[in-house]
Amino acid sequence: MTNTEFVLRLPQWLATVLAPESVRLDSTEARMRFVIDLAQGNIDHKTGGPFAAAVFESGTGRLVAAGVNLVESSNYSIAHAEMVAFALAQRTVGHYDLGIDGVARELVTSTEPCAMCLGAIPWSGARRVVCGARGEDACAIGFDEGAKPTDWVGALRARGIEVVQNVLRDEARAVLEDYLGSGGTIYNTRGR
Amino acid sequence: MTNTEFVLRLPQWLATVLAPESVRLDSTEARMRFVIDLAQGNIDHKTGGPFAAAVFESGTGRLVAAGVNLVESSNYSIAHAEMVAFALAQRTVGHYDLGIDGVARELVTSTEPCAMCLGAIPWSGARRVVCGARGEDACAIGFDEGAKPTDWVGALRARGIEVVQNVLRDEARAVLEDYLGSGGTIYNTRGR
Repeated sequence: MTNTEFVLRLPQWLATVLAPESVRLDSTEARMRFVIDLAQGNIDHKTGGPFAAAVFESGTGRLVAAGVNLVESSNYSIAHAEMVAFALAQRTVGHYDLGIDGVARELVTSTEPCAMCLGAIPWSGARRVVCGARGEDACAIGFDEGAKPTDWVGALRARGIEVVQNVLRDEARAVLEDYLGSGGTIYNTRGR
Repeated sequence: MTNTEFVLRLPQWLATVLAPESVRLDSTEARMRFVIDLAQGNIDHKTGGPFAAAVFESGTGRLVAAGVNLVESSNYSIAHAEMVAFALAQRTVGHYDLGIDGVARELVTSTEPCAMCLGAIPWSGARRVVCGARGEDACAIGFDEGAKPTDWVGALRARGIEVVQNVLRDEARAVLEDYLGSGGTIYNTRGR
């Protein structure tokens, strides 16, 4: 018998962090620091890869939803931090288009998106993408970013999606290196 | 308070189809016809876009999992047919790598993958991808395929993933045209 549903759930440590208070962060750097802390938390709690993302309202800085990489803990290869954050944000907004109500929302991600998450951005309705570590920083510790269009930043901008790179890159990269040092699994590195 | 989990569930008509018997289809064409029928079913039951996909064991032809486009019904932009099929197949196999046990598994999709689903393929562990309608057929009725690498087929093959295109393309395209004719929503066609 085949399965007919699946669930993706944030780990308990993160669900607990998010529950008690509403997060509202004015600056781009503060939003990135929040996300980097979640990536570090995902390492410390051994709940997944060293990646985190969140969706914020661009204007107010209000947190809409957060995600961390859950590939190993969930056994779903689509469970990258950005995908989890998008789905949870869309559940909160109540629509697959995060701009449906005219409020600009943005993705803040601790590392630049892989090919899958990059492809997911235009479908999400996010109007801005803020990135910490570069794709090459993830590759440097053995992760595979997939085949992205050469000018992926330009392709997003051509759709009216603002892209900001290198926000707290050193801190974001340090989290990746910490994961490598801690002996975390670098999955999906078969010869394909 | 932010949401901390989300569920993706096949529509009832499809869950019912899959439950009573195990599907086993020898030929590539038979697998594609099965998937095209699901895409048509998704239109007829008004449960989503005109897209379906399934994961089969390449050798035995045994169905591992099926998915249909659930973007509108679920309100998750990641709920493309291929993503749903991957996650349900991984739940069945019990691992994020669909080749973990040495059994070759393949994605059969009624229309070539969009940029997001294309990026998801290498992470899934699928060893073969079988496509019906072309990306341009989806674009012809107003859907957006996103920014894919120019030689996306070559990029998959370079990873050892076999790609077969144009399987029952006319039948697959006819389903897309039927959706357009039925007045189905062409979502995500804002100017981005």
